[in-house]
Amino acid sequence: MDIPNIELDRIVDNALAEDLGWGDITTDAFVPPQIKGKGSFLIKAKGVLAGIEVSQRVFHRVDRSLVLKILIPDGNHIDKGMVVGTIDGPLNSILKAERTALNFLQRMSGIATATSQLVEAVSGLPVKIMDTRKTVPGLRMLDKYAVHLGGGKNHRFHLGDGILVKDNHWEALKVSGETLAQAIQRVKARASIFLRVEVEVKNMAEALEAVAAGAEILLLDNMTPEQMRQVVQKVKGKVLTEASGNVNLQNVRVVAESGVDFISSGALTHSVKSLDISLEVGMG
Amino acid sequence: MDIPNIELDRIVDNALAEDLGWGDITTDAFVPPQIKGKGSFLIKAKGVLAGIEVSQRVFHRVDRSLVLKILIPDGNHIDKGMVVGTIDGPLNSILKAERTALNFLQRMSGIATATSQLVEAVSGLPVKIMDTRKTVPGLRMLDKYAVHLGGGKNHRFHLGDGILVKDNHWEALKVSGETLAQAIQRVKARASIFLRVEVEVKNMAEALEAVAAGAEILLLDNMTPEQMRQVVQKVKGKVLTEASGNVNLQNVRVVAESGVDFISSGALTHSVKSLDISLEVGMG
Amino acid sequence: MDIPNIELDRIVDNALAEDLGWGDITTDAFVPPQIKGKGSFLIKAKGVLAGIEVSQRVFHRVDRSLVLKILIPDGNHIDKGMVVGTIDGPLNSILKAERTALNFLQRMSGIATATSQLVEAVSGLPVKIMDTRKTVPGLRMLDKYAVHLGGGKNHRFHLGDGILVKDNHWEALKVSGETLAQAIQRVKARASIFLRVEVEVKNMAEALEAVAAGAEILLLDNMTPEQMRQVVQKVKGKVLTEASGNVNLQNVRVVAESGVDFISSGALTHSVKSLDISLEVGMG
Amino acid sequence: MDIPNIELDRIVDNALAEDLGWGDITTDAFVPPQIKGKGSFLIKAKGVLAGIEVSQRVFHRVDRSLVLKILIPDGNHIDKGMVVGTIDGPLNSILKAERTALNFLQRMSGIATATSQLVEAVSGLPVKIMDTRKTVPGLRMLDKYAVHLGGGKNHRFHLGDGILVKDNHWEALKVSGETLAQAIQRVKARASIFLRVEVEVKNMAEALEAVAAGAEILLLDNMTPEQMRQVVQKVKGKVLTEASGNVNLQNVRVVAESGVDFISSGALTHSVKSLDISLEVGMG
Amino acid sequence: MDIPNIELDRIVDNALAEDLGWGDITTDAFVPPQIKGKGSFLIKAKGVLAGIEVSQRVFHRVDRSLVLKILIPDGNHIDKGMVVGTIDGPLNSILKAERTALNFLQRMSGIATATSQLVEAVSGLPVKIMDTRKTVPGLRMLDKYAVHLGGGKNHRFHLGDGILVKDNHWEALKVSGETLAQAIQRVKARASIFLRVEVEVKNMAEALEAVAAGAEILLLDNMTPEQMRQVVQKVKGKVLTEASGNVNLQNVRVVAESGVDFISSGALTHSVKSLDISLEVGMG
Amino acid sequence: MDIPNIELDRIVDNALAEDLGWGDITTDAFVPPQIKGKGSFLIKAKGVLAGIEVSQRVFHRVDRSLVLKILIPDGNHIDKGMVVGTIDGPLNSILKAERTALNFLQRMSGIATATSQLVEAVSGLPVKIMDTRKTVPGLRMLDKYAVHLGGGKNHRFHLGDGILVKDNHWEALKVSGETLAQAIQRVKARASIFLRVEVEVKNMAEALEAVAAGAEILLLDNMTPEQMRQVVQKVKGKVLTEASGNVNLQNVRVVAESGVDFISSGALTHSVKSLDISLEVGMG
Repeated sequence: MDIPNIELDRIVDNALAEDLGWGDITTDAFVPPQIKGKGSFLIKAKGVLAGIEVSQRVFHRVDRSLVLKILIPDGNHIDKGMVVGTIDGPLNSILKAERTALNFLQRMSGIATATSQLVEAVSGLPVKIMDTRKTVPGLRMLDKYAVHLGGGKNHRFHLGDGILVKDNHWEALKVSGETLAQAIQRVKARASIFLRVEVEVKNMAEALEAVAAGAEILLLDNMTPEQMRQVVQKVKGKVLTEASGNVNLQNVRVVAESGVDFISSGALTHSVKSLDISLEVGMG
Repeated sequence: MDIPNIELDRIVDNALAEDLGWGDITTDAFVPPQIKGKGSFLIKAKGVLAGIEVSQRVFHRVDRSLVLKILIPDGNHIDKGMVVGTIDGPLNSILKAERTALNFLQRMSGIATATSQLVEAVSGLPVKIMDTRKTVPGLRMLDKYAVHLGGGKNHRFHLGDGILVKDNHWEALKVSGETLAQAIQRVKARASIFLRVEVEVKNMAEALEAVAAGAEILLLDNMTPEQMRQVVQKVKGKVLTEASGNVNLQNVRVVAESGVDFISSGALTHSVKSLDISLEVGMG
Repeated sequence: MDIPNIELDRIVDNALAEDLGWGDITTDAFVPPQIKGKGSFLIKAKGVLAGIEVSQRVFHRVDRSLVLKILIPDGNHIDKGMVVGTIDGPLNSILKAERTALNFLQRMSGIATATSQLVEAVSGLPVKIMDTRKTVPGLRMLDKYAVHLGGGKNHRFHLGDGILVKDNHWEALKVSGETLAQAIQRVKARASIFLRVEVEVKNMAEALEAVAAGAEILLLDNMTPEQMRQVVQKVKGKVLTEASGNVNLQNVRVVAESGVDFISSGALTHSVKSLDISLEVGMG
Repeated sequence: MDIPNIELDRIVDNALAEDLGWGDITTDAFVPPQIKGKGSFLIKAKGVLAGIEVSQRVFHRVDRSLVLKILIPDGNHIDKGMVVGTIDGPLNSILKAERTALNFLQRMSGIATATSQLVEAVSGLPVKIMDTRKTVPGLRMLDKYAVHLGGGKNHRFHLGDGILVKDNHWEALKVSGETLAQAIQRVKARASIFLRVEVEVKNMAEALEAVAAGAEILLLDNMTPEQMRQVVQKVKGKVLTEASGNVNLQNVRVVAESGVDFISSGALTHSVKSLDISLEVGMG
Repeated sequence: MDIPNIELDRIVDNALAEDLGWGDITTDAFVPPQIKGKGSFLIKAKGVLAGIEVSQRVFHRVDRSLVLKILIPDGNHIDKGMVVGTIDGPLNSILKAERTALNFLQRMSGIATATSQLVEAVSGLPVKIMDTRKTVPGLRMLDKYAVHLGGGKNHRFHLGDGILVKDNHWEALKVSGETLAQAIQRVKARASIFLRVEVEVKNMAEALEAVAAGAEILLLDNMTPEQMRQVVQKVKGKVLTEASGNVNLQNVRVVAESGVDFISSGALTHSVKSLDISLEVGMG
Repeated sequence: MDIPNIELDRIVDNALAEDLGWGDITTDAFVPPQIKGKGSFLIKAKGVLAGIEVSQRVFHRVDRSLVLKILIPDGNHIDKGMVVGTIDGPLNSILKAERTALNFLQRMSGIATATSQLVEAVSGLPVKIMDTRKTVPGLRMLDKYAVHLGGGKNHRFHLGDGILVKDNHWEALKVSGETLAQAIQRVKARASIFLRVEVEVKNMAEALEAVAAGAEILLLDNMTPEQMRQVVQKVKGKVLTEASGNVNLQNVRVVAESGVDFISSGALTHSVKSLDISLEVGMG
């Protein structure tokens, strides 16, 4: 898994602190520590699996003695009835970690599944589905990892690893009396050598001005597919283009056919439908 | 607001650390600190407002000099075109905090709105809509606060502030050779004097056994409305009843008419559709 | 042990950071790492053991290679001369962890012992000894766990997992113009379905008013045993009763004989006499 | 106050997180935010005040708008009936912070009071009462600050700011084949130039050996007053002497008359009797 | 200042925790709180100022009542005798914060000064001086901010905000049996749309292979100026070039004259000579 | 190693969080997890090794499965061509930890090396080289540990573990109207019994006044060697003396010949030249 230990540990601890807190009063009274249990992650809906590694970590944080197995790794297409991982050990510990583990797994798989549906909807076209920064506060890394597992591409992780000139940035130049070209020049000088400049535009005029000013990617904001097609024709080969604004399963192919290189969707992470996965628990 | 400062500070810091991180390379280059700006939270869809206080805190954490106003407090019904709050001060700071603030506001308002729709769907009936522990890891307090603002009632906050005997707890008694009544006795002795005992049951037989064993609330798991009605008739006055399992806007009224006291919905927090709210930013 | 890993780790780290800090200058100079040592927790006074698991964790946090054994588990009655646990490994590490480990063990055993003395003093009577929120800041979980090990029952863990209407809450209603019944109604609607309502009362009149208003438990504050007996007679079967106020070994049985269900004692945790336990260290 | 902000903030946050946690369900329901309140710290027993500054910080962390006054500063002798500080502002906030603030104040004042009793018991003699490292895990700084306010002197704060050769250190030299003088030489070379060396001794022979080996302070462990007197006579002028072992109000003066420079008492912090102080709350 | 509050707060707290810790025993005994003081940051050597804002924050964290003035902002050229900022308020607090504040200011100004010397040494040439990831653990943001203030450009901040294929990455392809072009293709697909690909090369052959494989920047590792000149001639206009390896004030101009676009220097941050700046303190 | 686990863990986590952050985009794309690698720390310049243990911990934090060997322990003299430690395991993990590990090792070895050079320059003379509090914020413990490994002695670790009366403290007495002797008396009463008092003096008159007032160590600030010699002659046997102020390899022996007991150098830690050490990485 690509996410570093220190980050995963922090996220898992944070989650357990809020759900397990000072202990599980019911389980401690009902399940003596010597009773062995067995848990199986059972898939109950078609989709893409994401979060099985994080979920297993939750169990280990609660009890090091639990034996964890991943039968199907993150990123695979899954379907109803499949068992993707198992846990063996004290039943007590399995029950304490269950909800937190599922909360990660169901959300991440929900994101990966929605991403893969958009990806499939544009299959055959040379376009990439992308996420945004509209993630749940505190879980950006996992939200974006789930998009990646679903076949999507990640946009900026935070405000420092990409240069994106939005309408408000552009308008602020009127006050400072600077041209877009001058401002882009300055941000390029200031930023690391790795970072490209993307500029948000709302129409052809802005698109052409942005390209002339040094933009390397255009963010086509809330344009019609036809408007996008016209901009793409003009700028193809010079800059990359990203379509943005209320994309969904119904309209994504039409948007893609405009020829844009990327289509980004905030809904992938801000309006997640969690995937139905359960932990089937039995006596070990 | 009922959420303590120390908790809010921790959540807001956590969110800004991941989104703002080491700085906003674009804004720092485009917007000199002396340019003043103005932001207005503009509602773009009908719903219930939740998160305006948290959002304002995000701005203050980025820049103490920002002047914040809440025009419509959390918990109010809102509609398209309303402005619920404003921010005045350095444009630079407004742009840095915008996305994180909106991520809180849109999710929380989405939860409150969905809750209020369920509440409205059962209006006139003596039933309460409740949440579950199926929240996003790290944001449980805010997720549940949003449910409350939407007119819902909160179930357990964590594994220690309620006693809920699930099927796996019950089954574990077969191994330990204890009766349900004995186990309930023990958990009551162990738990604080404030905590009631809820038992999950799948049919009439289990319901009656649970009541006899000392349950004070029954969780009717995935029963049909008719099954629930029969259980309710038997136990009314002795224990409270909670319906659970795939409740939605379509079926919630039928479920409610079974006479249960509470209906809980995991989807309220595990499958959130964020409410459309924007921050309209202009030069101050 | 019922306390989750994440909580124990946090408490142990916090304690070691303050005592061991940047190192043990004396031990590092006097005891080369290759010298093996052996430590035995020796009981030097009669009581109830509490904290042996936490203490062992302190040693492991200092040095993973130490071999720890618990000979007598937490919660057992102990007496002078008993050895309850051993540590084997680098002498160096044993000496660094010793004081912090003992600080936990002696305090927790002191609390458990005092609790068990109160419990014994009321033996044969149907009453439970309870703790309060008068714990040492930062150690509430351990303080309350020690009360439990001593045979006591835990009251609220924090302000959110129980509803306790104190005199100041009641008086505030005069300003808001609300009745007690109305306010209890509102707090029940707001709180989770698991939480009962306790009301603090100073005399019979208040007791009857509270019961009429919906209280489920009465906190009889600083009443004489005779006053308590009268209240208990009136409310028995309708609500539970808790006696509170300067309870000690001398008067606890008299208080208990009033018929109350619970007797709470702040002194159990706010005025702890640590139990005399030493770590006998020798060369391994 | 001598304790740095960063430390106080950490301790206060830690304490509030455990007591206030996710909110005060009772107070939020009973006391609307607009009701003003007034709190007065009322002394109910004779003693020495310690912790009023820390307590006030608890209130400010809960609500910045509270107006705090300290009428009698930390370190003063107090008596029944005195009011040492006041809080004005939202009643709601006062009630939420009350218990945590009192937990600090009562414990610290208990420590300061017990210290001042020992100090008074040896008045007229050239001896200083000292604390030990037998403090409550997580509160060492406050425990020791309270000892200071009570007129006591602080021993080591942690294992790195003093050199104390205990019996186990000494015995380890038999394995390493080094003399005490050699080991003391090495620890002096390793430690900062500020740190003196104290050696624990159990009898005259050890005392003389320790002095010869370079000890600058002797810790006389569990000797009779007469044994101590003899050692003091021998070493006076060459080294300082500290008496240790089960000192209490009854025997402290006899111990002091042996002529030792310091008497340390673990009970000052490991067996605290909290001082009776209440917060009298009224409508503002 | 471009560094977010949450990051600065964390760094300053961390620094004060280690230097001020549990208090300043000397200052507390010698300087009663009512004595007013005044501090002036006095420059004692020619250079570029960096860290004045961070330093001022240190004072505010120790004492909110201190009045701070910045006379000369970060990034300015400074010379012996200049006063760049002042502090007014309790002398006590000024002395406690002094060393920590200076430790930031002297190191950051040292880095900015060394950077500006390299920048000046290549003045007139179209080349930029850059830093590396060879910073002090825990202070990367400040180290790189100081490089920026000295006129340098920042390379990657961490392993996630730039793609840099080093020799070991390239060699690993032999095991996986992949071509460089294929691997670059994959990393581009995986990374955000903002990130360019830089490849480390040791000679002309590698340089040409890298360009053919899709590299957008070449890192010329430890080549002679003449070798670099030849590579630059071949690839100019196609990719950017960065010279790396033991650059210093003596050889930097020769390196720059090879025509490379960037010259990076690890010594800027791994071998810092702190700038001589003192805090002149007087009675206020 | 003398540094406690909790401190090392905190420092290593802090360092990895800033360098590895959310992952290593290049390595994840180029090096599949199954490729094995081997790393060897290769010394490229003569010096003293410091930091090999810390560096190894960095690798383990990234990947528990890495097998680490230390061939030459910290504190040894090393020379060009020596291999001091090895790492075996997933190449992927080795590359992710490399830079952070080296940043620790190179800085610490640079400090140890510079220290040993000063130590060697005064060889044969009865003087000790000491560090100061002029360390890098956040790394004081490691900076001072490196000085120790280089043969130096540590001065205060923080403001609480030593009493050092500087010129500003002395001057403040004019305002409070106290004598130096009185103030020293008070600080001795307040501080722990372990702490000696050092007083900074600028000339003979101050030196004599300080000794008379109770100083136990004199800090001779920026005096000429001849001035220091005269002071030393006067106070030898009564107090210890420390020379301070712009000491370097050229002048240190002359300073030492003045007869002072200690020479402290801020440059040891504020102006570090990192030692040239590389990690040679190959396929395993």
